[in-house]
Formats: sequence, structure tokens, C-alpha cells
Amino acid sequence: MKKAGILMGSDSDLPALEPLFKRLKEFGIPYEAHVMSAHRTPARACEFASNARKNGFGVVIAAAGKAAHLAGVVAAHTTLPVIGIPVKNSLDGLDALLSTVQMPAGIPVATVAIDGADNAGILAAQILSLADASIAEKLEKFKVDMTEQVMAKDKKLQEKLQSI
Amino acid sequence: MKKAGILMGSDSDLPALEPLFKRLKEFGIPYEAHVMSAHRTPARACEFASNARKNGFGVVIAAAGKAAHLAGVVAAHTTLPVIGIPVKNSLDGLDALLSTVQMPAGIPVATVAIDGADNAGILAAQILSLADASIAEKLEKFKVDMTEQVMAKDKKLQEKLQSI
Amino acid sequence: MKKAGILMGSDSDLPALEPLFKRLKEFGIPYEAHVMSAHRTPARACEFASNARKNGFGVVIAAAGKAAHLAGVVAAHTTLPVIGIPVKNSLDGLDALLSTVQMPAGIPVATVAIDGADNAGILAAQILSLADASIAEKLEKFKVDMTEQVMAKDKKLQEKLQSI
Amino acid sequence: MKKAGILMGSDSDLPALEPLFKRLKEFGIPYEAHVMSAHRTPARACEFASNARKNGFGVVIAAAGKAAHLAGVVAAHTTLPVIGIPVKNSLDGLDALLSTVQMPAGIPVATVAIDGADNAGILAAQILSLADASIAEKLEKFKVDMTEQVMAKDKKLQEKLQSI
Amino acid sequence: MKKAGILMGSDSDLPALEPLFKRLKEFGIPYEAHVMSAHRTPARACEFASNARKNGFGVVIAAAGKAAHLAGVVAAHTTLPVIGIPVKNSLDGLDALLSTVQMPAGIPVATVAIDGADNAGILAAQILSLADASIAEKLEKFKVDMTEQVMAKDKKLQEKLQSI
Amino acid sequence: MKKAGILMGSDSDLPALEPLFKRLKEFGIPYEAHVMSAHRTPARACEFASNARKNGFGVVIAAAGKAAHLAGVVAAHTTLPVIGIPVKNSLDGLDALLSTVQMPAGIPVATVAIDGADNAGILAAQILSLADASIAEKLEKFKVDMTEQVMAKDKKLQEKLQSI
Amino acid sequence: MKKAGILMGSDSDLPALEPLFKRLKEFGIPYEAHVMSAHRTPARACEFASNARKNGFGVVIAAAGKAAHLAGVVAAHTTLPVIGIPVKNSLDGLDALLSTVQMPAGIPVATVAIDGADNAGILAAQILSLADASIAEKLEKFKVDMTEQVMAKDKKLQEKLQSI
Amino acid sequence: MKKAGILMGSDSDLPALEPLFKRLKEFGIPYEAHVMSAHRTPARACEFASNARKNGFGVVIAAAGKAAHLAGVVAAHTTLPVIGIPVKNSLDGLDALLSTVQMPAGIPVATVAIDGADNAGILAAQILSLADASIAEKLEKFKVDMTEQVMAKDKKLQEKLQSI
Repeated sequence: MKKAGILMGSDSDLPALEPLFKRLKEFGIPYEAHVMSAHRTPARACEFASNARKNGFGVVIAAAGKAAHLAGVVAAHTTLPVIGIPVKNSLDGLDALLSTVQMPAGIPVATVAIDGADNAGILAAQILSLADASIAEKLEKFKVDMTEQVMAKDKKLQEKLQSI
Repeated sequence: MKKAGILMGSDSDLPALEPLFKRLKEFGIPYEAHVMSAHRTPARACEFASNARKNGFGVVIAAAGKAAHLAGVVAAHTTLPVIGIPVKNSLDGLDALLSTVQMPAGIPVATVAIDGADNAGILAAQILSLADASIAEKLEKFKVDMTEQVMAKDKKLQEKLQSI
Repeated sequence: MKKAGILMGSDSDLPALEPLFKRLKEFGIPYEAHVMSAHRTPARACEFASNARKNGFGVVIAAAGKAAHLAGVVAAHTTLPVIGIPVKNSLDGLDALLSTVQMPAGIPVATVAIDGADNAGILAAQILSLADASIAEKLEKFKVDMTEQVMAKDKKLQEKLQSI
Repeated sequence: MKKAGILMGSDSDLPALEPLFKRLKEFGIPYEAHVMSAHRTPARACEFASNARKNGFGVVIAAAGKAAHLAGVVAAHTTLPVIGIPVKNSLDGLDALLSTVQMPAGIPVATVAIDGADNAGILAAQILSLADASIAEKLEKFKVDMTEQVMAKDKKLQEKLQSI
Repeated sequence: MKKAGILMGSDSDLPALEPLFKRLKEFGIPYEAHVMSAHRTPARACEFASNARKNGFGVVIAAAGKAAHLAGVVAAHTTLPVIGIPVKNSLDGLDALLSTVQMPAGIPVATVAIDGADNAGILAAQILSLADASIAEKLEKFKVDMTEQVMAKDKKLQEKLQSI
Repeated sequence: MKKAGILMGSDSDLPALEPLFKRLKEFGIPYEAHVMSAHRTPARACEFASNARKNGFGVVIAAAGKAAHLAGVVAAHTTLPVIGIPVKNSLDGLDALLSTVQMPAGIPVATVAIDGADNAGILAAQILSLADASIAEKLEKFKVDMTEQVMAKDKKLQEKLQSI
Repeated sequence: MKKAGILMGSDSDLPALEPLFKRLKEFGIPYEAHVMSAHRTPARACEFASNARKNGFGVVIAAAGKAAHLAGVVAAHTTLPVIGIPVKNSLDGLDALLSTVQMPAGIPVATVAIDGADNAGILAAQILSLADASIAEKLEKFKVDMTEQVMAKDKKLQEKLQSI
Repeated sequence: MKKAGILMGSDSDLPALEPLFKRLKEFGIPYEAHVMSAHRTPARACEFASNARKNGFGVVIAAAGKAAHLAGVVAAHTTLPVIGIPVKNSLDGLDALLSTVQMPAGIPVATVAIDGADNAGILAAQILSLADASIAEKLEKFKVDMTEQVMAKDKKLQEKLQSI
């Protein structure tokens, strides 16, 4: 199975990424994670991205805050799909969002919500499901579970409302 | 080869999507395109999305403006990766961007730049390349071409500067 | 008397909705409330909305945060007036506001302020008052009470200022 | 049948309101329209709003730009539902949107999109439909027509795509 | 000497206005303060504003948050200069700022910074100084004091820096 | 009668100021106008402001765009009320608005709307009316005229609507 | 004398940079200019930046729009001061501004205004003036000229005002 | 060696500037720091800036919040490069950023990120390195250290991930 590569601009982004780690494990997707900065270790980020496809990665997920260039710099060096997670750090995350999503033509970054690590994991699974039917099955089950959870919450709400 | 599904909220979005059609043809990716609205034809959008995987689609691209719900509504009904293109229509496209990218946990939309149809096409190719090596090759060539185009432009600039 | 339907995208929105429950009780308006998500339980949301008018509802109130599609998705399936409450969750609620209010032509959502559950309740009462004169009377009394409360606060202020 | 009252802050707002007039005629809803300003003719606006319910109005629609106070000022003087249309005039309409929608608790304004006159008309019809079943029927038909129009546009798109 | 009139939309705005009370006392400017709402007690606000000039006021200061209409509504009913204080309550105060400052032609509001009660007091003094030379003198002294305070702070900084 | 001083950061701001000149003439208020820049001719701006009160000015109006410092710099050197007009030049005028209105405590600028030259003239008249009863009378008349103009526009609208 | 390096993300940025070329010539500062993209030709941008100091450059100016990463990527590879020009291309240039200025700690970009090519040239001259007294002299003269130009404009304004 | 001049609008900005002091010491750059306000002590700010070059300064760093005019006012009086630090105080620092960076043509301010004191120190060092090779060496070493720190953090991450 293809791996997911996870890059974070700083180790301070780690807590924001925990839902991503959890989600990938849940879907049984192997991953590697690295602290790599577009600005402080650009050579390593370029090297990782340039070799990602041949090193068995199927998708790269990059998380960064402020003027978040990491996802774009990674995308410049690979033909794999790159998922960008804008991390909230200043200006409510608007700077990270715009720096990640507003990529010029030629170099897309598949951007998720500000601090959207959970969705980045699900999107990675959706992408990898194209080459691995077992992930597609897990995603179907995940969707059913999610529906059931909401319905359970609705049931609880009904009980709560009756007791008011 | 898996197909790309293209949904637009209104036929007025068509001109903004031309770079997407062009890009998919260039990469030899088959596609189907439909005018479907999250609000005006919700049943059809749900049906399309629900059956997309079994109907041979590998990725769905949804373009909409203003309170752009189309990509999110599609993503609610499929486990395929869904690419969202925020179309500029009001507020410089900020409303469409936020309505597309700020999806709640559980239902990701891979968002590209405002009016980023070209990048949506490239991202679709990157995603489909996971299951089709020929697309990966075309993407590598595309990257080389892009580099050469920039270098040709730089060469032209040098000539221009000398004549000043 | 027609009922008010209340839908919330997540049970985490419940505290923000308490002023709404309180206000509806105060006006003697019967209601049903459900946790239903435009993305996680789209089928249930569609079904609820599609049958709302014939099931005795006169207005539907939908509260959601981030890329808040719930009110719009509900509005797509009913001809009843739909009130949207943008819930503050990220970006100070600006994403939820724009996702709720900037609806494309054909499918209006009557949007109140960010976290404006109280006003959603009053607006629901105003709408239902068209078919029920008793609510109109309660609204007149509410307006008088509100005026008196402000005047009482002004009186207190005068006392406070004299003691400075 | 109850009437719709339409107030605009300036006659320069008239072109932006044409879809509203058209929509109300289509639904057979009688209306009165006035140029009235929250700031330049406050007394008249107060008077109109204070007597709106007893003068046979069921809903008031107020359109204004910039620091758009008109809808709020009208809402302060009536217990009828008040629909606010933020008119784009400066700052892409963001000032008018926030001035209209961010009403303090106690005085709701049912806000539609920036320059959303068409939706204001439909929302007015939805509100009036609570007391008039014939409007509800017209709204159902309108929804079906809208669906068919989108499907016709999709059909045209298919023809266009085949000829490419 | 002319009085300053102070209006606040809610008594919850009182703490934000304390620097204003302090400043007016410091300049020896008599004032009256009231809780009055553009929306909850519109008649009283109109009446206060309409009679302000003949009741001995020289300037009216209005503070409100969210869709802050109070200053504009007051300005509609008087030819006195009206100072608007946008109170931060939601959206970092941006909604209150735009609702206060973006007044349409004909009805100006002299707007100060978000939560700028202190400056509202100084501006009131500057305005009243046109008809009262003693206030002008106090303002000159205030300016000199302010300069000296900054210079004293600079001196302290020098001591701090030497001890580092 | 006290004069109004008008400063503009650039002669390109002149067209935006025409309603101001017109308004001041209408109210019979004498004025002086200068091109002076906070950044390009700071010494002259300081000198003008420092001597404004003793040179017979009663109010200074400063118009500038982008990082609009002119009003603030003028306010730093005078105890007269200073009116700031944010001129739209980039970012829809938001930069000029925030640079003008968000003054730190101690140095107020009475800010009007973006490109609000007309209102700056009326506000100047309101301020000067404190020391000159003739201006107060003109302002009352202006208010009545403004009301009549709106009523005339409403009358025209009624004729237009009947002919539809 | 040290050279200025000018990098633009696309040749479409060239017209926006003309004031920069003009300004550098005026100050007699030698320069090299290149079309180089952080995303399309990352290797060349890295190489240029890495060798800039030893190749005789004293400052690098990078202009880019949208998610403008060029200045940051250049700054990652050099210890020379890097000036960033955010080019307006979408969202009024706000995306380019935030992507350029909000750099994480460790890698500064000296950001000028949106489309501020002229100021980038002056800032480059100011920086280079530290090692070259002749540029400092030219800058002093430039400042005097600028003052005189404003004074000449003021003189013209006086003539214009008298003829009104 | 040339000195760095540090100006802060208020002593409340001091904590935000600590990384700047630390960074300058680390690079062995002498500095002077002052509390000086563009508005409260304009004469001192002008004087400091006017004499900065001849008093041995090579760069001036100005930090201010809200309508941050300090950097611009300083830049108006010197031909030295001026670095502006927008200090977050209201509106998430957006007002300070725009007031600092959006300078009109002729008077650049080299703006760093909101609360970017650390980067201001590095940028000052980069600028001063043009005339002092020892700083250039320190900057090279700083860049290497920074890379190593990120790599050490990556190593720690690998250990952490293995223990999960």
C-alpha cells in the first residue's frame, strides 16, 4: 500500500495534527512524518518531495501556519497530490489559509479547512482508495458510522428535550 | 481509466471552467460534465454523487460561487475525493472560498484557489495518477514543460532588458 | 398552531441555541429539535425538510458553523421560510455567516446575526404571527417589555452616575 | 391577501430591486414601495413601520447600502418580519451586510445575500404563504420550474460538450 | 458651557465608556448619560436627539456594538456633531466600526476607534473648545502632559535597558 | 467666522474632495486648502497644524489614501478637532479607513466614511455651528431640504410604479 | 557597487515592476532581473538566492501574486536582505500581502505595499546606501525633490482654487 | 559598526520587542531604544529620525499598534532603511499591518509580520551586513543553526512516533 507523507513546518504544529495520525491509523494507512520547513530546511523539503513518488508515497500532507509556504514548496517538487493544512497561528488562520490555497496555476495544493487535520486524513484515504479497494470499503463504513453517531446524538437530544 | 466528474452550480460558471476541460483533455482523462445545483436540483446532485464510484468516476470536481455548497453536498454522498473550485461572483470570491474550504470534520473538500479551474484539472490528474502510471508520466512531462516555459520567458526578459 | 423545526449541525451547537428554546417557550410556540447534518446525515435532513410543511411546521431554523450548509440544504427541500443561524466556530463566525447568507438566487435563507439564536426565535414568532394573532399580541407585549427594560436600566444608570 | 412593503434608502437602489418587483408580481403578491431613509426621513420610516401591520402589510422588505440602518430601524417599529437586503455600494457590500445582519438581541432582521433582491421576493412569498395556501402552491410550482430550468441547462451543456 | 450627551445602546457598554466619563470630568465638561437603544427605545433616542441642541448640548456621543445604528439614528435627528464609538462585541468590532463610520451622504458620524471612549472624550472637548476658550487651554495642557508622560516612560526605559 | 483647513495628501485626491468644497461654500464657511503630505512634506504639515488655531481655523479636514497618516499627524500637532477622510486607493479603502480611525488614545481623528468628503463638509459645519448660530440655521434648513428631496424621490417612484 | 537582483514569479508581473526599474536607474544602481518561480522553477530560484551574495548582489527584490511564496523561498536561501512586493492579482492583493509579510520567525521578508514596486526600489537604495555614500546623497536629493514636487502641486492648487 | 535605532510607540510594546533585543545582542549589533510616539511626541520622533544617519545609525526599527504611524513618520525624516513592526493590539493586528505596510510611493517601510520582532532583528542584521562582513558570517552561522534545530526536532519526532 502507498504511504502518506506528513510534513509539519514546526513541532509546535504537532498537537494540531493528532487527529490526522489517529485517522490514518484507523484507516490502516502507513505514514512517515517529519518536521521540515520550507524556509529553515528547504533542501530537505525539496529532497523529500522530489523522491516521494519513487519512495512509495501516494500523497503528501503539509501543515504550516502564518505565510504557510510548505505545501506549495512540496507541490513544486512532486507530481503526487499534496494536501495543505493551514494552521491557525495569527489572524485567525486567514494568512495560512490564503498562503496555502491561492496557489498559482500549474501547482495545485488540495487545501482543507484551517486546522482541518482530521479532514486531511480522510481526504488522504479517499485519494489512496483509488488504488486500494480496501480503503474504499473502510471509507464506506466510516460514512455509515458517522451517520449513526449523528443519529445517536439526535436521540440523546430528544431525551434531553423531554426532560426540560 | 477512471473518469473525472465535473459539476457546476450554474451554466454561467462554464467560462471559468474552460481551463479545466482543456487540462483534462491534455492529460487524456475522460470526463463527464453536468450543470447541477446543490439547491435547485439537490436530488440529482445526491444521485450523481452516490453512484459516482460505481459509475467509474475516480474524482469529482465541483465549481460554485457565493455560498458555494455544491462541493460539500457532493462530498456528503461519496467516498471519492471531491475537488472544490470556489467561483468568484461576489465579495471577490471570499464567500465561495470559505463556503468550500471550511468543511466540518468528516467531510473533506480538496479546495483549490478562487477560479482555480486549471489547478483543479492538474490535481484531478495527480489523484488519478495513483491508479494509472501513464498519467504520472504525463504529469512529469507537464512539470518539465512548465519549467521550460518559465525559462523561455526569462530569456525573453533578458532580451527585453538589453534593449531598454 | 404551526410548529417551529429546529435543526443543528452538531450537538456542540446546543448551548448556543438555548436562547432560542427559551424564546419559543415564552411565545408559546411548539417546536421539534433535531441534530441533523447537511453532510453527515444528508438524507435525514432532506427528508425532514421535504415533509416539513405537511408535517405541520411553519418555519425551520437551522444552526451550523464553519462552511455552514445546513440552512441552505434545508431551504433547497422546502417552500417554508428557513431561518439560518451562523454559529461562531472559526474565523470569528465570518465563514458561517457568508456560507449561510450568500445564497444563490432561488433559495433564500433568512439569516440572523452570528450566534443570533435569540433573534432567530423572535423572527420565527414574527413569521408565525401572520397566521396566528395571539403571537402578534405576545410580540407587541414583548416589544413594550423590552422598552421598559431599557428604561429601567437607564434609571439605574442615573442613580449610579449621581453616586460617582 | 397581506401586502409586502418595500422600502429603499435611495432611489439609486431601484435597479438593484427590479428582480424583487418581478418576483412579487409573479407570485401575485400586492406591494407598496417607497423611497424612505433611516437618516433623511426617519419620521416617515418610523410611521410606516409602526402602522404596517394594521395597514395590511404582512412583511416589510428594506434595502440599503453602506451603514445600512434602514431594515433595523424599520424592525424597531414593527412586530412584522422584516427582510433586509444589503445593497453593494462600497467595500463590496460587506459594510451593508454587517450593518443589516448583525442586529442586537431583540430586533431581528431576516437578511438575504448582498444585492439579493430576488431571494428577498421569494422569502417574502414563503412568509406570506403561511397565511395563504395559494402562495404555497405557487412556490411549489416555482421550485419545480427552477429544477427544470437547471435540467434544461444541463441538457444544453451535453450538446455543447459533444460538439467540442 | 455646553453639555455633552452620552448615549449607550446597552448598560453592558458602560465599562467600555469609563475612560470617557473620566476624560470629560478632567476637562470640566458637564454631561448627561443615558441607556437608549436605536432599536429598543427608538422614540426616546429620537426625542433626545431632536431636542439636544435646544436643551444645551453641544455634542452627542453614542456608543454601540454589532450592527451599531445608535450614532446614525441620533445624527438623523440633530444638527449637532455626533461622535460614534464602535463597541467591540463580535467580529473584533469590525461590524460596529463599519455600521458607525460608513454613513451615507448627508448624515455624518464622527467616528473614533473601536472601543475608543477615551478619544471620544478628547474629541468632544476639542469640538466644545470652539465655543469655550477654557477648554482649549486645558487641551493644550493635556497635550503637554501627554508628551511629558511619554518622555518619562522613555527615561524609565533607558534605566531598564542599562540594567539588562 | 472660523475657517476650515483642508489638507490632501496628493493632488490626485482633489476629485474626491469636490463635494467637500461645494458643501463648505453652500454653508458659507471660508476655507483654505493645501496639498501637504505627512510623509513628503512633514515639516509643512506640522507647521500648518501647530498654528491652525491661532491662524483662525476652527477645524482641519485631512484626506489621504493607503496608509493614511495625514489626519493623525495633523491631530498630533493641534488641539482643534481634526476630521479624517479615508480615500479609496487600494484594498477598497479599508487600509485608509483603519489607518485613519484606529488612532491610539490621546489623539482622536473624527473619521467619516471612505471617500466621505460630503459628510466631512457637513460635520465641519456642525462643529463650527457651536460658535456660529448662522451655520446652525443653515444646517436645519439643509436637513429639511434633504427630507424634501427624499419625499420628492418617493413621489416620483409612485408615478413610476403606476406606469409599470 | 553591489547589484540589486530582481525576481518576478511571472512575466505578467513585468508592467507592475516598471517603476522599480526606473527608480534603480535613477539611483544608478546596477541590477539583474529574472523570471523565476518558487513553484515552476524552484531549483533556479534556490540557486540564484544561494549564490546571490557571492555573485555581487546586495539585495534581492521578489515580486509575486496570489499565494506569493517567491520572496520567502528566496529568503530561505540567502542572508541578504530580501524585499517582497505583493502583486495584486486576486482578493485585491490581500492574499499576496499576507503570503509575503507573515513570514515565520527566522526568515524575514522586508515587505512593501501591494504593487509597491516604486518603494521597493527606494528601499533597495536605502539598504545599499549603507555601503555606498553616493547612494545616500542621491536619496537626500530625492527627498528634497519630492518635497518640492508636493509644494509645486500645492501652488497649482492655490491657483486652481482662486479661479473657482 | 552602525547602530540600530529602536522606537516603540508605547512602553506597553516592550514585551513584544524582547526577541528583537535578544537577536541584536546575539548578532553583536549595538542599539539604542526609545519610547517615542508619532502622535504624542512627534517632535522628538522627527528629530531622532532626521539625525539618525549622522548619529551613527544604520537602520531604524519602529514598532506600533492600531493606526501605526510611527514607522511611516520616521521614514519621512530619514533616508536610512526603516523597518516597521505592526504590533497586535486590536483587529488581530490587521490595522497595524495595513497602517505600516501600505505606505504611499516615495516613503517605503520594510514591514515584517505582525508581532514579528524576531524577524525585525534578523532583517536589521541582514541590512547592516552589507557594510560589515562579520555580521554576514554570523547570519550564515545562524542559518546553519536554524537548520540543525529543525533537524533535531525532526529526530525527536521520529522517537516520539515510534513510541506511539
